Amino acid sequence: MAQQHLDPTDPTTAGPVTADALADYLRAQATEFLRALRLHRETGPGSAAPGEEPVDAARALRHAARRITGTLHTFRPLLDPTWAEAMHPELAWLSGTLAREHAYAARLDRLLLALQRLSGTAPFPTQPTTSPAPAVGSRSAGAERVGTAEPATGGPRTHPAAPPDRANLTLGAAKAGALLERQLTLARTRAHSAALQALGSSRFHAVADNVAVLASEVPLTPAAASPTTPTDLRPLALAAHDRLCDAVTALPLLTAGHPYNAEALIHGLSADPAPHSQDAPWHHVRLLLRLRRYALEVLEGDEARVDVRMLSAGAALNRHRDASEAAAAAAAAARTPRIAPATAYALGVLHADQRHEVEAARFAFQQSWEKKAMSTR
Amino acid sequence: MAQQHLDPTDPTTAGPVTADALADYLRAQATEFLRALRLHRETGPGSAAPGEEPVDAARALRHAARRITGTLHTFRPLLDPTWAEAMHPELAWLSGTLAREHAYAARLDRLLLALQRLSGTAPFPTQPTTSPAPAVGSRSAGAERVGTAEPATGGPRTHPAAPPDRANLTLGAAKAGALLERQLTLARTRAHSAALQALGSSRFHAVADNVAVLASEVPLTPAAASPTTPTDLRPLALAAHDRLCDAVTALPLLTAGHPYNAEALIHGLSADPAPHSQDAPWHHVRLLLRLRRYALEVLEGDEARVDVRMLSAGAALNRHRDASEAAAAAAAAARTPRIAPATAYALGVLHADQRHEVEAARFAFQQSWEKKAMSTR
Repeated sequence: MAQQHLDPTDPTTAGPVTADALADYLRAQATEFLRALRLHRETGPGSAAPGEEPVDAARALRHAARRITGTLHTFRPLLDPTWAEAMHPELAWLSGTLAREHAYAARLDRLLLALQRLSGTAPFPTQPTTSPAPAVGSRSAGAERVGTAEPATGGPRTHPAAPPDRANLTLGAAKAGALLERQLTLARTRAHSAALQALGSSRFHAVADNVAVLASEVPLTPAAASPTTPTDLRPLALAAHDRLCDAVTALPLLTAGHPYNAEALIHGLSADPAPHSQDAPWHHVRLLLRLRRYALEVLEGDEARVDVRMLSAGAALNRHRDASEAAAAAAAAARTPRIAPATAYALGVLHADQRHEVEAARFAFQQSWEKKAMSTR
Repeated sequence: MAQQHLDPTDPTTAGPVTADALADYLRAQATEFLRALRLHRETGPGSAAPGEEPVDAARALRHAARRITGTLHTFRPLLDPTWAEAMHPELAWLSGTLAREHAYAARLDRLLLALQRLSGTAPFPTQPTTSPAPAVGSRSAGAERVGTAEPATGGPRTHPAAPPDRANLTLGAAKAGALLERQLTLARTRAHSAALQALGSSRFHAVADNVAVLASEVPLTPAAASPTTPTDLRPLALAAHDRLCDAVTALPLLTAGHPYNAEALIHGLSADPAPHSQDAPWHHVRLLLRLRRYALEVLEGDEARVDVRMLSAGAALNRHRDASEAAAAAAAAARTPRIAPATAYALGVLHADQRHEVEAARFAFQQSWEKKAMSTR
């Protein structure tokens, strides 16, 4: 019934959804987790198969782990509490460990591309940063461009693309780029080792065993599993939706919707060691947006609607998170002892540039969100 | 006739205006120039009278000189060519010389306030930078806040306000502020001396003598002065208006109207010694906007309409120019030998911040200009 789909923000507009959908979803994600794990082991370090590369396997593993974790969170009252409580932190640990290597690679990529842009030597056309609906996958696509910047420890190899050309950069920008590359490559190498270690640990094997059980049998509570009094999933999905809306309401959207408000850089030179606590509520909304998306996937199964506006709101918050972390990395690099003033200057410009990206991402989020709110009036 | 005023962009909507208006305007500006000069001499260095301060006299002198110069430029065909050709460069020299001291003071003020904002220690509420119609006089008002940062050579003294408090800045921001203060105060002191020297020079006395003649007798061409075949000033004013519109059309307004386009900083780390040639067309439009305004003042006399939108477009371009020059000053300070990396880092952040101000000013200009274009459709 098309009319029930008029309001893409409200997950309760469709008819009741029973706990079967929850069990189906968790089983499917668990299966996907196991498939990705198998693929990752087959194509692991040093054995990259053509077609399906280990980077895809690692990504699929992360995605499935995140979906299971998020679903456990949103639909906790319908799941066996002992099992869910034991499972949740273990999956969160795994997602976090697996995400780190990718994040460092993407961060380095973002910073080197920004240095190129700031030097006016970017070999690709500069896009307005608020172009409508940026591709959600752009982060990993970007990561693939710096294939050769990967550590030599057998990390995932992607395209053999050249690293950003530093020949035309000024000395300061080139040195800043080299410093960031050194620091973030080291961090990435460590994250890669940590991920490999995690995947070989008994802790991980316990998680994998649990997921294997989940693939065949989802531990619903007796009430949720009862066929006589079917449980409706929608109130819990609606609660996830409401948590998102409440958190968005608390954001400074009025300021964010005012271009060039200069808020994001306001503590750029602060002595405060955690100057960007202003980012935290936005990061939180990013997570809540994801939880809401997974809840909708549970409700709608394979026919989950693509909500373009929610996608672009989510993409804006991904960009917000990436730029925030990149700005912090530039600031951290500037604290390296004995760097040249020209290097420090370039890192300062780079930091400010990424903080303005943070501001731009907030603006983009505000625009997406307001559009959404209007279209459903 | 109110209907004739419907289109504030077209200076020809009112009835014909004869060369008398040009003569009246030039006489009035020449008189104002002489009044300001007398006031400046009476209240010169070390003899500031209450009420009318030398900074006001200097400003009035600059304003009158600029208006005479601009009018000579726009209405050149109606003025004695030998006289106009001799007068124009001399007045331009004077305006330039007088403007420099004020510009350095305003630049230092802007940079110190930005450092405070970036350190999160600004003692005043932060305003969104694109708040509608910024006050046109904000530049000089700002300059007055750093009264004590003035050179000890007897430069104009304004309010005894405290300089921005650097106690809460980080070391890098504080050192950057001190470096900028040293460099720009030195530049200002030199500009002050140069202005004093200029005002005592025989070159200046020749200009003043010429302006004194102008105050009683405007050297119109015989054709323009002829009472039998009155000349209409409007075609020349319209030409000034058209030159403005043509120059605006050539600006990248589509990009500028797209918030966070990241254009202004694109060459922020370029090896190009003149990286911000992208600013030049905007500076040019700023001058053309001023010429158009003066032409309207000639046409409309004391009843010149206040065109709020043109004013805010002009204010945006003033901000553009100020931020562009402030960013260049921060970059220049970063090239000082043997500065600490923390200082260079702060200057890099400051440079990028001011380049984003440049971008914000372009956005504000685009908004004002488009509003204007729409309202006159």
